[in-house]
Amino acid sequence: MAAQSSPHAGNEPNPLLIFDALNGFARATALKAAIELEVFTFIGAGAGTAAELAKRAQTSPKGMRILCDFMVIQGFLAKQGETYGLTRDSAVFLDKKSPAYMGSAAFFLVHPTHVANFMDLTAAVRKGGTVNEQGNMGPEAPIWLEFAKWMAPISAMGSAALAQIVNTPGQGMKVLDIAAGPGAYGIAIAKLNPKAEIYGLDWKNVLALSMEHAHQAGVGDRYHGIAGSAFEVDLGNGYDLVLLPNFLHHFDHATNVKLLQRVRAVMKPGGRVATVEFVPNDDRITPATAAAFSMMMLGSTESGDAYTFKELDAMFRDAGFGESTAQELGPQTLILTKY
Amino acid sequence: MAAQSSPHAGNEPNPLLIFDALNGFARATALKAAIELEVFTFIGAGAGTAAELAKRAQTSPKGMRILCDFMVIQGFLAKQGETYGLTRDSAVFLDKKSPAYMGSAAFFLVHPTHVANFMDLTAAVRKGGTVNEQGNMGPEAPIWLEFAKWMAPISAMGSAALAQIVNTPGQGMKVLDIAAGPGAYGIAIAKLNPKAEIYGLDWKNVLALSMEHAHQAGVGDRYHGIAGSAFEVDLGNGYDLVLLPNFLHHFDHATNVKLLQRVRAVMKPGGRVATVEFVPNDDRITPATAAAFSMMMLGSTESGDAYTFKELDAMFRDAGFGESTAQELGPQTLILTKY
Repeated sequence: MAAQSSPHAGNEPNPLLIFDALNGFARATALKAAIELEVFTFIGAGAGTAAELAKRAQTSPKGMRILCDFMVIQGFLAKQGETYGLTRDSAVFLDKKSPAYMGSAAFFLVHPTHVANFMDLTAAVRKGGTVNEQGNMGPEAPIWLEFAKWMAPISAMGSAALAQIVNTPGQGMKVLDIAAGPGAYGIAIAKLNPKAEIYGLDWKNVLALSMEHAHQAGVGDRYHGIAGSAFEVDLGNGYDLVLLPNFLHHFDHATNVKLLQRVRAVMKPGGRVATVEFVPNDDRITPATAAAFSMMMLGSTESGDAYTFKELDAMFRDAGFGESTAQELGPQTLILTKY
Repeated sequence: MAAQSSPHAGNEPNPLLIFDALNGFARATALKAAIELEVFTFIGAGAGTAAELAKRAQTSPKGMRILCDFMVIQGFLAKQGETYGLTRDSAVFLDKKSPAYMGSAAFFLVHPTHVANFMDLTAAVRKGGTVNEQGNMGPEAPIWLEFAKWMAPISAMGSAALAQIVNTPGQGMKVLDIAAGPGAYGIAIAKLNPKAEIYGLDWKNVLALSMEHAHQAGVGDRYHGIAGSAFEVDLGNGYDLVLLPNFLHHFDHATNVKLLQRVRAVMKPGGRVATVEFVPNDDRITPATAAAFSMMMLGSTESGDAYTFKELDAMFRDAGFGESTAQELGPQTLILTKY
């Protein structure tokens, strides 16, 4: 409810922001429903009224009308008379025919297992971490495969840019991709550099997906799997580059230092680590999405957080690494750290 | 995330609005946690840093820091350096010492039973109503008592204004309050007009609360209970005024017409009905809060909706009533209908 969400709108005290926030779960589940029913895709293909959309999506006309109006209120659709249209962002990200489609993120972010982590945040605040057993973090937890499947389009967004930044053209590269997930970052490097050899590490069930994506991208012969925990499995050695996409936020400082020591031990001197994270500024309230990510970690991990650049830099230094530098990578931050 | 929520902010396609919406449940549950931990009340009483707040609320410092920063991002707290402060709205509505405190609404709106209704909105859109058995609507459902308890401060906000509007000073008034809940509207009339006799109708378990509030307000001797379903119980007769606060939105047109016929039959000719509802404009997308309320009804009722003034007027006319007029009552609308 963009127009009414500003805490400073109007001159009178207004309880609507509070009311809207308390109804926030409907915002999430309604967007998921619209994605699941392919409302944005049908509108992109020409269906304009609730009646037409209900027919195509095989829903009740009333349910579709309420859903579409709610999407207009939330800023995901436009409405002229009785006709709905896509917004700029929904055309790019929520129409299945768009190459940047990321609607599938809904199935991870509104997954019942994930939502369950947030139902008792009071207890999580008391404790300083998730109150669900292991949170999402269990080995081979089915949610990680869901995550890898559904977040693939999102990591795909930043992967080409990352590959351009870290590539060493004409030279061989031995790359370790820790918690490879859908494999996007490593695969993008392999596509750009025909001499790159990628070692993707993840849980066995997730790794099957990384490998499949590598084969689909035509780099399967240079994509090697390491199944297991990054804290325990043999990591191999001689890496020019280690990728750490969205991994450090799951753990506390001491655990990350231990991991980074393991990582440094298998790198070539002169190699680099490329970390992708949501990195809030030192004020911890900007940028909003990166700063808000700390709440996601509080609800879903034992001891994770959204770390500032200073905090990440300190972890690397405590593990023996050299200088770190930061640059924007879409809504996230790419941190390059010297051996 | 007010600053980033506008679908038209910036010139590049931006997936953050989508990401934010899919994380909407955390917005709801985090605000509930902050209310439950009395964060706003402690800040109002002078606690300023996360460390101080953690001590007072007996939480982990880390959890409190993440919670407070998240509240800043959501617009419910301010932050200067390490010190948190209340916003205008959180001072008025979320500090327990404020007379307009409405934090208790969180316990109904983020009640697990209520949230469960929204976990499969796709199916609700297909069907055109809730897919949970009876939704929230079962007789004597425990959630109605929760509702009445926790929503009391909210209905209290509009009740004094409503009483001023409908009062007939110096004259006796026999008032029927249908689905009285916490009883605020009827009690406000009884306080304003010493000759008013109020008949509050609700489920038996809820009515105990209405009666208790009437006694606390010193009007218990003029507050009478009618326990049961508004569709079945003997309503009495000879009413000058019938209150219908937040009731019609639970049902479809035909059901409401049947109810309104029952209501008209027990009124004095020349009497009035005072309906309080979230009433969207004909475009069904403004005002945002009233229009969005239709989604709450889709998820939690068999056949309810947020009705436009035209639709409400048609229900009254189909039941034999005369003219209806509408006026603002806080974030809701007061509709006065002639016999």
